[in-house]
Amino acid sequence: MFDVRSLKVPAIQAPMAGGISTPKLAAAVSDAGGLGFLAAGYREPEAVAAEVAELRGLTDRPFGLNIFAAGGEPADPAVVEAYAARIGIEGDLGEPRHDDDHFDAKLALAAELAIPVVSFTFGVPTTAQIDALHAAGCAVWVTVTTPAEAAAALGIANDLETPSGTAASVARDVAAEIASTPAAAAAAVAVSSPGPGPDALVLQGFEAGGHRGSFDDLAPQDLGLLTLLRLVAGITDVPLIASGGLFDGAGIAAVLVAGAAAAQLGTAFMLCPEAATSPAHRLAIESETETDVTRAFTGRRARGVVNRFMRTHDSVAPSAYPEIHHLTSPLRAAAKAANDPDGFHLWAGQAHARSHAIPASKLMDALAAETKAALASAAETHID
Amino acid sequence: MFDVRSLKVPAIQAPMAGGISTPKLAAAVSDAGGLGFLAAGYREPEAVAAEVAELRGLTDRPFGLNIFAAGGEPADPAVVEAYAARIGIEGDLGEPRHDDDHFDAKLALAAELAIPVVSFTFGVPTTAQIDALHAAGCAVWVTVTTPAEAAAALGIANDLETPSGTAASVARDVAAEIASTPAAAAAAVAVSSPGPGPDALVLQGFEAGGHRGSFDDLAPQDLGLLTLLRLVAGITDVPLIASGGLFDGAGIAAVLVAGAAAAQLGTAFMLCPEAATSPAHRLAIESETETDVTRAFTGRRARGVVNRFMRTHDSVAPSAYPEIHHLTSPLRAAAKAANDPDGFHLWAGQAHARSHAIPASKLMDALAAETKAALASAAETHID
Repeated sequence: MFDVRSLKVPAIQAPMAGGISTPKLAAAVSDAGGLGFLAAGYREPEAVAAEVAELRGLTDRPFGLNIFAAGGEPADPAVVEAYAARIGIEGDLGEPRHDDDHFDAKLALAAELAIPVVSFTFGVPTTAQIDALHAAGCAVWVTVTTPAEAAAALGIANDLETPSGTAASVARDVAAEIASTPAAAAAAVAVSSPGPGPDALVLQGFEAGGHRGSFDDLAPQDLGLLTLLRLVAGITDVPLIASGGLFDGAGIAAVLVAGAAAAQLGTAFMLCPEAATSPAHRLAIESETETDVTRAFTGRRARGVVNRFMRTHDSVAPSAYPEIHHLTSPLRAAAKAANDPDGFHLWAGQAHARSHAIPASKLMDALAAETKAALASAAETHID
Repeated sequence: MFDVRSLKVPAIQAPMAGGISTPKLAAAVSDAGGLGFLAAGYREPEAVAAEVAELRGLTDRPFGLNIFAAGGEPADPAVVEAYAARIGIEGDLGEPRHDDDHFDAKLALAAELAIPVVSFTFGVPTTAQIDALHAAGCAVWVTVTTPAEAAAALGIANDLETPSGTAASVARDVAAEIASTPAAAAAAVAVSSPGPGPDALVLQGFEAGGHRGSFDDLAPQDLGLLTLLRLVAGITDVPLIASGGLFDGAGIAAVLVAGAAAAQLGTAFMLCPEAATSPAHRLAIESETETDVTRAFTGRRARGVVNRFMRTHDSVAPSAYPEIHHLTSPLRAAAKAANDPDGFHLWAGQAHARSHAIPASKLMDALAAETKAALASAAETHID
């Protein structure tokens, strides 16, 4: 089974749902000694299978596939309707349906295709689901944003008595319980490794672009990456992958020194020619415009470059995912097609202006060289 | 003149205004090879002079003094009155006056006493003011939260043509201009070092406890520490001091690898017996309760442990500093005296639960040993 500690270059290309991640990008990163990722989010299972086949035609190196595990209850229709009434002026609206993004079908597909690494965002699969992926040879990674979510991810996975409800609802309950009882958190992680359960945790700092991976959108904590990393390193010895606002080798070296097994970078790859980033989005990434976190586009907190749509609707946007995602989908697609940067989600991490429009292989080579140099200089730093 | 790169242990005790920083704490940190700090904020100049004298009676090692440079215009009285009407139920209110916290007198005092390091928060002194401190043998550090503020701090200090208005207003204007023109930012820092101007920048990440050092409370950017550090390292070679959410040597080693000359820790020292942290505040620091950023207590964004006062008033608290600080001062003092953790500001960084109730000298020894170990392990990390 794939072990993140075996990477030649400890840099992982973050899955970017919505079309930005491509097989070409993932192949370039994996071929360069890192780990490329495909994003199953928002796609039909058949489309995911086609992308995996395309990627396997480009490289025989390991790669990852990210699956959304949001689950949760449908939003109050009145709340969604009120937001729909407000944003109707922006363009055509979609049907604000509640769904689980084909969670079961994508899990089955991942096992069937023996995807080397399957990562989850917004929640935690059940022990049985993790066992099934392990049986198929898939390593399982879970994205977390707080120590309580980390404990929940490890606790569920290691508690064979846990009834298998929907992934996210169970995770949310356990996270809430653990957050309220530190002793329970300690107990939950005491058997964290080695054994069954997630093979690694992806720690997402507040700096990261795109959706916050919080299990509960209404109870987020906005921990900076380095603090999150040191806090979680204190409760588990499962390999940790650090993500959020990283863009160069010195930053990667820093998280390695702080205990990470590897770094995951998303925005840093968005200007690469292999990424399917739209022209308007590329200009926003290159700009110095600041980012902020908003529910305005999807009903779930996500970081993007500030634009008119965000400024106009942020303060009243409800927590209602994926209903608001589906509601705004047509008007965002129209704005993207019209190259209007003020009308759609410009997901980006805090350091977006430091992204480079160079081939992914060259970016990987630079990151590897910079990381090596930063680690070497660390060795020369003298503390009495 | 004191050079941060000469520290035996690259750990600085952050100034904590409001009484928590004490001469005993600063002396213990400086004696252990780090750098202790006194906080001039909110105090009368005579009280600051007395603390400096006490500290010099305890150690002959270098130390620092932090001065608030908030400046800015008075708040709209109607806004302050509306907030006063709302929080009157909490207890006795103070006079919501606008003042500059004796900025000129404290500057003169710092020069007169030849304080080894004078750091500034909320704004930047003028070139003439920095020159005067340099002439007195004081090193000058400026706290920044964004690359634009870093450029403004360096640009002002190096532009002898800059008219010397009030510190904060000039800094704000320049920061706004620089933020809007990347070329100007590059030009401003081209002559950053060596020469006149700040001798170091203190980079305050979003993780940090207490007030955000933003020059403009209404235009903040919430950059995580590691991202902020890598962004600012890209525009200057002035020594950088990293602060926000750090609590152990692995975190310190990480920021050193990322280019910092030293780390600054505040919350990590709040449980030390030498700190004058109140009993209720100590319990909050030890707890697992989350933190958030609020204007509810002082009219300026600051991070503290979430409590009833914050939850109740956060959403309507205006940006009006120091008016709201003075307005709420009596009721906060009363709550602190009554040991009521729900009635006053429980400033704390994101990793507060990892603070230790041990003497500062022991904490410093542990931080030094951990930092050394983390740097040594970095040297063994192999990248192909």
